[in-house]
Amino acid sequence: MDEHSLNLNCLVSEIGEQQLLQRLYRFCPSHLVGDDAAVLPTRGDRLLVITSDMLVDGTHFSIGLANPAVHTTSPADAGWRAAAANLSDLAAMGADPLGITISLGLPPETPVRWLDELYEGITACLNRYQTPILGGDLCRSPILTLAITALGDVLPAHKILRSAAQPGDVIVATGLHGASRAGLELLLHPEWGQDWSEEVRHSLKRAHQHPTPRLDVPPLLRHIAPTARVAGMDSSDGLADAVLQICRASGVGAWLWQDRLPIPDAFRQTQALSEADALDWALYGGEDFELVLCLPEAIALPLVQQLGGGAAIIGIITTEPSVILKDLSRTQPDRPLSLDRGFQHFGDRRSR
Amino acid sequence: MDEHSLNLNCLVSEIGEQQLLQRLYRFCPSHLVGDDAAVLPTRGDRLLVITSDMLVDGTHFSIGLANPAVHTTSPADAGWRAAAANLSDLAAMGADPLGITISLGLPPETPVRWLDELYEGITACLNRYQTPILGGDLCRSPILTLAITALGDVLPAHKILRSAAQPGDVIVATGLHGASRAGLELLLHPEWGQDWSEEVRHSLKRAHQHPTPRLDVPPLLRHIAPTARVAGMDSSDGLADAVLQICRASGVGAWLWQDRLPIPDAFRQTQALSEADALDWALYGGEDFELVLCLPEAIALPLVQQLGGGAAIIGIITTEPSVILKDLSRTQPDRPLSLDRGFQHFGDRRSR
Repeated sequence: MDEHSLNLNCLVSEIGEQQLLQRLYRFCPSHLVGDDAAVLPTRGDRLLVITSDMLVDGTHFSIGLANPAVHTTSPADAGWRAAAANLSDLAAMGADPLGITISLGLPPETPVRWLDELYEGITACLNRYQTPILGGDLCRSPILTLAITALGDVLPAHKILRSAAQPGDVIVATGLHGASRAGLELLLHPEWGQDWSEEVRHSLKRAHQHPTPRLDVPPLLRHIAPTARVAGMDSSDGLADAVLQICRASGVGAWLWQDRLPIPDAFRQTQALSEADALDWALYGGEDFELVLCLPEAIALPLVQQLGGGAAIIGIITTEPSVILKDLSRTQPDRPLSLDRGFQHFGDRRSR
Repeated sequence: MDEHSLNLNCLVSEIGEQQLLQRLYRFCPSHLVGDDAAVLPTRGDRLLVITSDMLVDGTHFSIGLANPAVHTTSPADAGWRAAAANLSDLAAMGADPLGITISLGLPPETPVRWLDELYEGITACLNRYQTPILGGDLCRSPILTLAITALGDVLPAHKILRSAAQPGDVIVATGLHGASRAGLELLLHPEWGQDWSEEVRHSLKRAHQHPTPRLDVPPLLRHIAPTARVAGMDSSDGLADAVLQICRASGVGAWLWQDRLPIPDAFRQTQALSEADALDWALYGGEDFELVLCLPEAIALPLVQQLGGGAAIIGIITTEPSVILKDLSRTQPDRPLSLDRGFQHFGDRRSR
């Protein structure tokens, strides 16, 4: 407990997001919170999985109502990403989606066309996974706000928790990391990365605007190893954040192999990005919506092989409670990673 | 389809809330939307019931961050009301609560104490019904925003839908209407209603700040008539709105007996409120969070008797698709009610 938690007159901006979450967790049953989604027993044989997200114009997307020149996200893409982020949380729990609710806070000057396109983007993503919209709420707000709650279900034996990692597990990233961050850079600074082909630039921007939730992974895992213990979460807040959160929840540590982190080939084929920047984006860029899983190597090997497309074993779970980035070529010293380095909603610690 | 639905460049402020909802319903499976909450079959024997609400500072409550002088709602009361509104939607479906998720959009200048008190209010209400918080999301926003999703479950035979009313049903209001609106008036204009005792003033303000979701009604209904067909919804948007929505969804009409509408005794004991204003607040005031139920008279009679406290039979369902307010003393002509008269989030049609 630090000094801020004693001073109730302090402001949200003065305490970190993690500390704020800890304060609010006091009000929740501890067995229900702490993962990408809450898990609730029902009277049937499956567990109910619930996750909620709030997205605010200017923070999570730019609809350009105030300034059309600066928007980086079309309404359809904003809708797709919002749906994808929530489905990704369900995938991170090993769950199958049941449906989502959508609440919208709308400025009166929102064009109806914008709303239609938002919903078209949301349903384009949901329809890929036969997931319905279960209703929601509409209200007036000075700032466009989107709150989504996604519901899924999972058999108890198949749920994926952050807290289930064990020393000796290998760590799997289900796909490339850093692509979304590079895509955002291209959208914000079109003059950047001109030495890439139009095709590469398009695919990086697409990674940012149109991420794919990895709902394909839980069924594949169940197919490969129906009764395996699997720990994990998604990498929406960055690869480093995911590994750190899993280690904290499981009371373990990790070694990550720096040269095994799956980054886009394009990162090695440009003058625009130093090796250090590429590593930074892979670890801290966020919003790639892949899964980070900890599981026995015997299951990880066929999983990575069948996933393809950038999936890789990136490290190993250790007993020592720290997360160390290791350079197997030994040109750089071991570096510990920490949660402070990732994106913080309320502070200003984002690196770029 | 009117002219607005063809012009996609029109703004949210230019079309009514009902029309906006109709536009968005196009994206939802029609069998899942249109009630206070969505109903989803699960693999167990009970249906899952889901409802979402978004509350925005300045529209739904005033936290007084910008102007402490004008806030009418303490953070604890705002929390209580938000939880109560969502639990009321579950009660309106006949469901038992399972839990809620809370997403918060927070200005950095929000005092942590305010947040703590908000959560204390939320949990004070939830704890009365043994309902846990299942997590949620936190993000930065220029305006304090609270999005709640509540989950419940119900046996298929016990679900209460808007669309199930039949001609010949009587209409039951489970309690007093207009009290919340009068309480708001007292909070906004403390100089008003001075001829009431402090006790009456306090109880009206309490009705606004601390409404009670009628989760007691579904178990009582199941006790009185385990297999009865019951239609209904809650009166959060006003008693008239509830009757009109039920009639529209059921393809029926209604007669309401003006002198049977349950209004607080205090309304008849003040110079501050004309008979017409009292009627207006009972019909259109909103936020009383009672249930409006349509059911056979043989069930309604013991229900009203056992509920007590203002519960009353207020009218009857008819075949003719209009809702008529009737004065049994025949001093006033029949008056048709319409949806346009109620509170609208995006227009400016609120009467007072």
